[in-house]
Amino acid sequence: MISVQEASNIIMKAARPLGTITVPLAEATGKILQESLAADQDFPPFDRVMMDGIALNMEAWQNGRRVFKIQGMQTAGAPPLTLESSTNCLEVMTGAMLPQGTDVVVRYEDISVEDGTARVNIEELEGWKNIHKKGTDKQKGEVLLAKGTPISPAEIAVLATVGRSMVKVSKWPRVAIISTGDELVDVSEIPEPYQIRRSNSYALQSALHEWGVAAKMHHLPDDKDQMLEALRQILEDNDCIIMSGGVSKGKRDYVPEALDQLGVQQLFHRVKQRPGKPFWFGTAPGEKAVFAFPGNPVSAFMCFYRYFRPWLLLSAGISQDRQFAVLGKDFEFFPDLTYFLQVKVKNQDGRLTADPVAGRGSGDLANLLQADAFLELPAEQEIFRAGEPYPLVVYRA
Amino acid sequence: MISVQEASNIIMKAARPLGTITVPLAEATGKILQESLAADQDFPPFDRVMMDGIALNMEAWQNGRRVFKIQGMQTAGAPPLTLESSTNCLEVMTGAMLPQGTDVVVRYEDISVEDGTARVNIEELEGWKNIHKKGTDKQKGEVLLAKGTPISPAEIAVLATVGRSMVKVSKWPRVAIISTGDELVDVSEIPEPYQIRRSNSYALQSALHEWGVAAKMHHLPDDKDQMLEALRQILEDNDCIIMSGGVSKGKRDYVPEALDQLGVQQLFHRVKQRPGKPFWFGTAPGEKAVFAFPGNPVSAFMCFYRYFRPWLLLSAGISQDRQFAVLGKDFEFFPDLTYFLQVKVKNQDGRLTADPVAGRGSGDLANLLQADAFLELPAEQEIFRAGEPYPLVVYRA
Repeated sequence: MISVQEASNIIMKAARPLGTITVPLAEATGKILQESLAADQDFPPFDRVMMDGIALNMEAWQNGRRVFKIQGMQTAGAPPLTLESSTNCLEVMTGAMLPQGTDVVVRYEDISVEDGTARVNIEELEGWKNIHKKGTDKQKGEVLLAKGTPISPAEIAVLATVGRSMVKVSKWPRVAIISTGDELVDVSEIPEPYQIRRSNSYALQSALHEWGVAAKMHHLPDDKDQMLEALRQILEDNDCIIMSGGVSKGKRDYVPEALDQLGVQQLFHRVKQRPGKPFWFGTAPGEKAVFAFPGNPVSAFMCFYRYFRPWLLLSAGISQDRQFAVLGKDFEFFPDLTYFLQVKVKNQDGRLTADPVAGRGSGDLANLLQADAFLELPAEQEIFRAGEPYPLVVYRA
Repeated sequence: MISVQEASNIIMKAARPLGTITVPLAEATGKILQESLAADQDFPPFDRVMMDGIALNMEAWQNGRRVFKIQGMQTAGAPPLTLESSTNCLEVMTGAMLPQGTDVVVRYEDISVEDGTARVNIEELEGWKNIHKKGTDKQKGEVLLAKGTPISPAEIAVLATVGRSMVKVSKWPRVAIISTGDELVDVSEIPEPYQIRRSNSYALQSALHEWGVAAKMHHLPDDKDQMLEALRQILEDNDCIIMSGGVSKGKRDYVPEALDQLGVQQLFHRVKQRPGKPFWFGTAPGEKAVFAFPGNPVSAFMCFYRYFRPWLLLSAGISQDRQFAVLGKDFEFFPDLTYFLQVKVKNQDGRLTADPVAGRGSGDLANLLQADAFLELPAEQEIFRAGEPYPLVVYRA
């Protein structure tokens, strides 16, 4: 049995390079940028008026002039006008290009207008006031977005500004989700008294949905031959398989044996953790990865967020910092296992406190609803004090 | 001019009841549950074996018996067997229904098997050990999920378990996104030297995408008649409009006037905040809401997350607690405005620290990339000290 850290290291080493795909800008949200993006022009691309008002020549102001003849209006989106005389000014609209011959903008709030002239009513004025100067944010050619950046609305705004109607992003692996266990029936069926409905596959599919990863679901019977045959095909058709069930010590836990026969190399089986001890992981030629989680809903759920999610993100080039929260009250756990405690996280004046949510073990699915994360309590420690920080595995934003 | 709190109150009072729609389970992630969900049976629905091993009768153990004849095997998904004699045991697999006549499970790790008999090698045993008893998590009829719950993977798991292949969720309002400003060209066009590409509409569309809200984009010219005509149709076709631009003091800022002529009642114009001061908000018959944000990219972005997002969630029945972070270093801001400071949030041992990211004002779009939230610094305060907590407006997870 290996430690959580060892298991995590092995999995992260198996991160697989993903392909790329080009998608329309409107579909890029939530995907991972796979090109480096430079400014195609200066940001802003011209001296841009930031306030509605008048633009004038600073030298005239410095020479004592306070009243200016309004020569015309510079609207946004129009070619720049030219100030014909420093005794003139031009009305300017926010977003317009600064008229030639002007170098300061005075807001409407600070002037009075009469008979085609504007009087400036303030005493102090600085050159370039209310002007967003060309190239001050970014210069043409400067890198705006690095390869591997997750695309959120802020990145979309910048991609639009530099004219990217198509964007090169990570192509997600083909993922199959497989449930096993003859006690499981489909969601639309009425279970016999000794059966339950499948829930893991739906939960995993939903969790993949966060990153826009589409995954097909399969269910395999607890029969070695049928399992072998079905698995062979699924392995061929996919880059990555997430299984749940069939990996513990039961007489019908055929998963490790079947995977072995299909040439999937076991990298570990069993991790010093609760829940999720029977977790099995292996790889196959073609950089395929197989995550075989235990069948208990809470175990499968935790393993997905603790191991699969970082693997997927690292495969796409993203290495996320771990988040921490402080334990809300004292807790004890004696076995030599990393304990993933279900917690509800509260933000109290910027301090994240994780309050334990008592559950009834790895089969207690309903308990997941009360919590929103697991707090990762290290194996080598037995007493955990309120106020101590531990890493979080968040499954609900 | 009204305060941020007043503006927020007015908007939240205008939260509109949303309709409902029934979607397949696989499409429910990210939506808001619009029905209350009760357990259709006990959780778990039967005394469920939690470990692979043997099931036996506790009374026999208490009477000193340590060796049991293996009568057969109780697999998962099979109808329950019956223990024929208390000198027998049954092999049991995880997930199986507990055989009749047994009331404890001993793990394979704790027994040795020879010649069809199992010897228990531990000294202590508690009744019901390794059994997840029927109804201990939830009882039939108990409410599992309340109306208004956001559906994340944990909720999907529970919905699957109770057999919901179709789920009643909020029907999002029909949202139109409108940009204005003659300086704007489309993302696929090459701007003239005095033009820039539209970015707000794409950013807003992307932000709506987080909740699965599809929105159509429109662009209106700075021409009053054309704007009126187009707006009339858009208002008719949608429940909610998000505009950007055209709301400040410019000669071509026709938006408030056009909305007024179309019967949209102004509830406020101008908020004591930076960025985003010219923000305009109104409602129209049919519980329609119009959010007219300033055109500067950072202003529109901030207003969306600070005002629109909570309005949308409250409309769906979700009232989210505000998140806080502590200011990372001293900051000063003197105007009598709420300042939305762009910050990068760090999690240091469970403490969220918000470090200011210096930008060049509301037009500095590129700066959004460096930050991931706005820290809301109250108007009535001028000096903000490192270590003080303030509310966060997060735009990047």
